[in-house]
Amino acid sequence: MNGRYRPDISRGPRCPLPLDGPAEVTLAHGGGGRMTQTLIEQLFFTAFRNPALEPLHDGAVLEVGGSRLAFSTDSFVVSPIFFPGGDVGSLAVHGTVNDLSMCGASPVGLAAGFILEEGLPMEDLRRVTLSMRDAAERVGVPIVTGDTKVVDRGKGDGVFINTTGIGLVPPGIDLSPVKARPGDVVMCSGSVGVHGIAIMSVREGIEFETSLESDSAPLHDLVARLLLESPEEVHVLRDPTRGGVASALNEIAAQAKVGIRLDERSIPVRDEVRGACEILGLDPLYVANEGVCLVIAARVAAKRLLHTMRGHPLGRDSAIIGEVVRDEPSKVLIRTRAGGTRLVQMMSGEQLPRIC
Amino acid sequence: MNGRYRPDISRGPRCPLPLDGPAEVTLAHGGGGRMTQTLIEQLFFTAFRNPALEPLHDGAVLEVGGSRLAFSTDSFVVSPIFFPGGDVGSLAVHGTVNDLSMCGASPVGLAAGFILEEGLPMEDLRRVTLSMRDAAERVGVPIVTGDTKVVDRGKGDGVFINTTGIGLVPPGIDLSPVKARPGDVVMCSGSVGVHGIAIMSVREGIEFETSLESDSAPLHDLVARLLLESPEEVHVLRDPTRGGVASALNEIAAQAKVGIRLDERSIPVRDEVRGACEILGLDPLYVANEGVCLVIAARVAAKRLLHTMRGHPLGRDSAIIGEVVRDEPSKVLIRTRAGGTRLVQMMSGEQLPRIC
Repeated sequence: MNGRYRPDISRGPRCPLPLDGPAEVTLAHGGGGRMTQTLIEQLFFTAFRNPALEPLHDGAVLEVGGSRLAFSTDSFVVSPIFFPGGDVGSLAVHGTVNDLSMCGASPVGLAAGFILEEGLPMEDLRRVTLSMRDAAERVGVPIVTGDTKVVDRGKGDGVFINTTGIGLVPPGIDLSPVKARPGDVVMCSGSVGVHGIAIMSVREGIEFETSLESDSAPLHDLVARLLLESPEEVHVLRDPTRGGVASALNEIAAQAKVGIRLDERSIPVRDEVRGACEILGLDPLYVANEGVCLVIAARVAAKRLLHTMRGHPLGRDSAIIGEVVRDEPSKVLIRTRAGGTRLVQMMSGEQLPRIC
Repeated sequence: MNGRYRPDISRGPRCPLPLDGPAEVTLAHGGGGRMTQTLIEQLFFTAFRNPALEPLHDGAVLEVGGSRLAFSTDSFVVSPIFFPGGDVGSLAVHGTVNDLSMCGASPVGLAAGFILEEGLPMEDLRRVTLSMRDAAERVGVPIVTGDTKVVDRGKGDGVFINTTGIGLVPPGIDLSPVKARPGDVVMCSGSVGVHGIAIMSVREGIEFETSLESDSAPLHDLVARLLLESPEEVHVLRDPTRGGVASALNEIAAQAKVGIRLDERSIPVRDEVRGACEILGLDPLYVANEGVCLVIAARVAAKRLLHTMRGHPLGRDSAIIGEVVRDEPSKVLIRTRAGGTRLVQMMSGEQLPRIC
């Protein structure tokens, strides 16, 4: 269906939004790096400007009827829809549960919107639905409302799922990227890059001889324990999805106007991930995760938090990977294994499309 | 990208979900008629079963921190993305605002998830974004959080938008399809079928010589006035989108286990819509709307409500179109212009794909 209708542009709003860059949407606009950030800031953020959008967080926190409600949305377009360790259904639940968790909220309910392509085997849809159900049951969050659309063959790709979640932020919890303070430690709850490399391992033409499975997992329980343990000392939580640890930390450094210094030797990277990254010329710091979170916390609580994280099944590989510093504001630097220091930039293009 | 990965089915859950019908997803599964209902009931509803899902409404109403929160999601895949009277952006705002309104809620915030196809002209995205902004501003609801994904060329169709909304249901308001009672009147806030026929008019090959524009509009203010006027007498609100008035009333009749009798002469249908429907062999009762709502209310309040509706810019064509009856439970009957009575069935297939 091609519309013959051409809108009368003279009737449209005269818009001051300047858009740098290409005249068409590219895959890199969805990569989670600099181009995604530019698109969001120059277009969506400028157009929709309002106080709740300001923090540019994984979700918004709204005051509603005396409660603080976290509200977060994500569309999942991962390809292929089934991959080792998960599928688009479980990923859609984990992704939004994690975004709520990064706001410090406990999940209350999920909405699920399906965009199905005509011709999708009903058996695939059944498997994806059951996987969502199982993932939601493990978290203990109900899927309370939904929507189903079907697009004609060749206008979609099997199944896309949007999940939007609401959660309650407990009193006393106030997380924000701008709260990263010089002196804070930067911690990582697990080995980085596993989800991205597991997906890549099944993509056509880049298959590895590895048994690597995605570590996609819901982080709500790990986060709840940290916030119970040290409600005031945890300053920032972030799950480094598209764009990886490097892009997430760059965003935080820019928003908090602080520097972040990482120690490469302390960043947990599994051998299979490191090997795959070497073959592909990738840096594990830019590979997407969906079962790992970054924790920026007061140094005084670091040992206690690390102990709590390591005691959790999803945090066994937790490590302190760096610190927040006053110098080099808005920059992320890394002390390499070789002993030098280099700048860790935000990802500039698309490293791995459709990873989530 | 084709995944070579084939999941080990033996590890998957042994599922009792029986799926009648075709082995593949068809366009009719998204049409809003019987096949959509079967898919939702047999698959999603069975898998996700929980109390909030029970009412099968346009949205869920949850008790959160002492407030009653409405929560509703919709993906918008309308084709073409620009059409007379609107575009996918304004439609995405109106659709979710209306779903919240049908729960009796005033909108508090929207989340917007974009799935963009590689190659989408940036100018189109800009226009759609500004249209969303303008629509949200007119409603007075902020877009507080969002997400952007990009899929490769040929795996999407320009832009799909998911909007999910939260709203507050005022104390004393409790709308539900099961509250339709024998004796109630069925009212319609405007002329039916305009949105669907406006879209069809710009689809390739089925263009009419008509100036018909979509009546897509946000109904929150009209609804707020009705509920202020008669908080207890308004029993059910429903916006008859996909599947039209016929499918919406069939759902209500089935859920409330009542009969609904319509009077064809009293249903407002504009001449252009009637003419287009005659040419196409369509029944206006099955054509989608996005600026019209059905109101089922106690007969005692009917005149008052009709007066209020007709006094609102979006309700000028309001009419009482039928009544709820005790006989013929779960059925919708219509007294035709010719004087006979016929059954109005739920739409069985797909009348008009990608209308919203």
